[in-house]
Amino acid sequence: MNSISTKAASGFRDFLPEEAAIRNRLLYTVSETAREFGFSAISMSACEKLEVLMGKGGGTENEKLIFQVLKRGDALSRALQQTDIAGNPSQLADLGLRFDLTLPLARYYARFRNDLPRPFKAFQFGPVWRAERAQRGRYREFVQCDLDVVGSSSISAEVEVIAACMQVFAKLKLDEVSVKINDRQILAGVGAKLGFSEAEWAGILVTVDKHDKIGSDGVLKELSEKTDKAAEIVGIFFGNQSASFADFREYAPEAVDAMENLVNVLKTTAGGNEVVFQPNLVRGQDYYTGTIFEFHHPASPGSLGGGGRYDKLLAMFGNESIPCCGGSIGFERLQLVLQEQNKLANFAKKTDAMFVLFSQEDLQKIYPIAANLRASGLKIDVYAGSGKIKQQFKYADQIGCRFVLIAGDQELKNGEIKLKNMKTGDEQCIKQSELTSTLEQLCRN
Amino acid sequence: MNSISTKAASGFRDFLPEEAAIRNRLLYTVSETAREFGFSAISMSACEKLEVLMGKGGGTENEKLIFQVLKRGDALSRALQQTDIAGNPSQLADLGLRFDLTLPLARYYARFRNDLPRPFKAFQFGPVWRAERAQRGRYREFVQCDLDVVGSSSISAEVEVIAACMQVFAKLKLDEVSVKINDRQILAGVGAKLGFSEAEWAGILVTVDKHDKIGSDGVLKELSEKTDKAAEIVGIFFGNQSASFADFREYAPEAVDAMENLVNVLKTTAGGNEVVFQPNLVRGQDYYTGTIFEFHHPASPGSLGGGGRYDKLLAMFGNESIPCCGGSIGFERLQLVLQEQNKLANFAKKTDAMFVLFSQEDLQKIYPIAANLRASGLKIDVYAGSGKIKQQFKYADQIGCRFVLIAGDQELKNGEIKLKNMKTGDEQCIKQSELTSTLEQLCRN
Repeated sequence: MNSISTKAASGFRDFLPEEAAIRNRLLYTVSETAREFGFSAISMSACEKLEVLMGKGGGTENEKLIFQVLKRGDALSRALQQTDIAGNPSQLADLGLRFDLTLPLARYYARFRNDLPRPFKAFQFGPVWRAERAQRGRYREFVQCDLDVVGSSSISAEVEVIAACMQVFAKLKLDEVSVKINDRQILAGVGAKLGFSEAEWAGILVTVDKHDKIGSDGVLKELSEKTDKAAEIVGIFFGNQSASFADFREYAPEAVDAMENLVNVLKTTAGGNEVVFQPNLVRGQDYYTGTIFEFHHPASPGSLGGGGRYDKLLAMFGNESIPCCGGSIGFERLQLVLQEQNKLANFAKKTDAMFVLFSQEDLQKIYPIAANLRASGLKIDVYAGSGKIKQQFKYADQIGCRFVLIAGDQELKNGEIKLKNMKTGDEQCIKQSELTSTLEQLCRN
Repeated sequence: MNSISTKAASGFRDFLPEEAAIRNRLLYTVSETAREFGFSAISMSACEKLEVLMGKGGGTENEKLIFQVLKRGDALSRALQQTDIAGNPSQLADLGLRFDLTLPLARYYARFRNDLPRPFKAFQFGPVWRAERAQRGRYREFVQCDLDVVGSSSISAEVEVIAACMQVFAKLKLDEVSVKINDRQILAGVGAKLGFSEAEWAGILVTVDKHDKIGSDGVLKELSEKTDKAAEIVGIFFGNQSASFADFREYAPEAVDAMENLVNVLKTTAGGNEVVFQPNLVRGQDYYTGTIFEFHHPASPGSLGGGGRYDKLLAMFGNESIPCCGGSIGFERLQLVLQEQNKLANFAKKTDAMFVLFSQEDLQKIYPIAANLRASGLKIDVYAGSGKIKQQFKYADQIGCRFVLIAGDQELKNGEIKLKNMKTGDEQCIKQSELTSTLEQLCRN
């Protein structure tokens, strides 16, 4: 048989053990934090019915992002007989890979709302897929971590979501994260005050949102082509380095009051991190209806995550509007920043010790000893190959284990095990009865 | 907009919080055990290139199992112009969802073998997808947990894989698991001794493998249609309730010796579980070349997992044969058995305590107290809705939390928090400085 390429498909990744361990540990950190904040893990499948992903009518922006799954058997044959198949190839597919975790959550809540507490604090993590052109740092499969409070219009929903995300950053010792917060209602209030229609104002905000890329001069220039109030808008949004609540209260008094309370609560728990009201924050997604927020770190060009209130999304499943607030941690970017900040050294624990193996017959003597150590939670390898001792030490070095355990005939006769420190080369003989406690102590440091 | 059905697609599942928590905890147990045995987590993506999944030529048995991903853009347009598309619809797809974790591992190892230790002890878990007809207990997406030792022909590879799986069962307090072990070489030795060709013998083994379903009488009947040695074969494989190594040594002396050593090593670590040489064990997969094994529990009709040695699989990626041994824990069935055996009560820890919220202004006072408790690892909810006190208690009951914390004006003035036990209804006031230690102690029990 001709050989087949061993590379992952374009935009998809294989993770070597070291990176895989780091990613698992990161996910565990997020997951534990979410639980400490009272969020319940939920889980859904990778595949959704295509109509769920596309919306009943199809033709949405998201459609292009969806990896569609080919129908099978008779259904595929029937689809292939359609005459307009080239114009509407989605007829060939019945399922699609989810492109985010929010839409599946909306479906899930609509399905199970009567069985779930209200408010429902949900936590999800897992891969999502987007059929975009793969490029450096942009993948077609990547992990999302979402926290959502469904069924609450209280700002305590915002508080819980944002504070939990901040606690994740704090646990990872990632200082200098700033939380930027705004409210779509404040943005809308400014537009209304200036006399724009909703549609006009949406176009204006697209330009305001480009501020990070094109600067306020760029925004002014682009806005000037759209309106004669360009200078006024730029003045409101970018005139003041640190915007005060007072400056914006006139546009949306209630939203600004709620924002002030939210910012103050978050400051009580922010530690060294900054919580900032940023009235020019827009965020792209069109489903946000209230609070919006983003997490930023000076070492990352893009945000480390964000979210907001989306009170109308669930209506697509036939429900009345249900107030929701959700946040997403940018898992891939978080890993990148932690790496660049050297926060991942020793982050994922390696194997503590390895037993060398002189012959396969020794397994019967070594195995009960290894089992004892493992039962105490120590990470113990028993060499599983047939290499010579030199190769076994090379292996121990490769897997990064700290100690090698030698149970030769002489040691076993004395009721001992020889322990070799891989870093210093020191050797010592330990009584078998003291092996667990000795190793636990050595590996704790 | 018309409403869209909220059900998951056929064969796919949504998990409610309680089940999701149990599954996460189960995965964590498997994962931690694998690490205690020195296996490194690795991870690959859900999608593989279609040619990897189908083999270069296609037309394999597996092809029918694959969910194929529709090509996109120009590639799709070009594919739709093929005239033979109806006869070969796979031209419409370029990717597929993985149907197991072994094939991706083979590709991964072939790709990275020079960067990996040898032997390489790998651990993977994650969903796989199979385009089978969904039915009760059979899903189109399900989780697999695989442990593999790649690059070792030593039986210590088998020992590590099997012992790690057994330790998972032990940790879950699942007694009565028996490990049934055989070797394809012993099966082949019997066939050779009886004078069958490899192809004939493969047909015979298909019938032998049906023993669990049709009994030895059924096997005898079906074999009689294939060979006049049917009675002899049934005698060898099913004549003796507890087969001894001595009975089979004549057919494959080396394999039987290795098997005896393997069984004896495993017995040293088996605890209350049984390790049995079972010479009539066949296992379906055609890639096994040596040892094969299965885990059984009396409460489960099918196995709880299994595996074996597959020394030739990696050759499809252009390598020479590489000796491998792998085992898979039947995650879905394991969950089912644990549920039936009532081993999952209190398995996943729930929220410890919830703060009631009298008004949103209270958040600024409550939040720092909650942050302290959370920092110690306690799972603390702050009510995130806007319901009345009665609704808040109902919520606390729904999420199964054990205590409710009340920080009213009076309590805060006294530097105290009121603690209510949700089960007994008892209330007590606790000094804020002692809240963490008190709650930790109460929640430990």
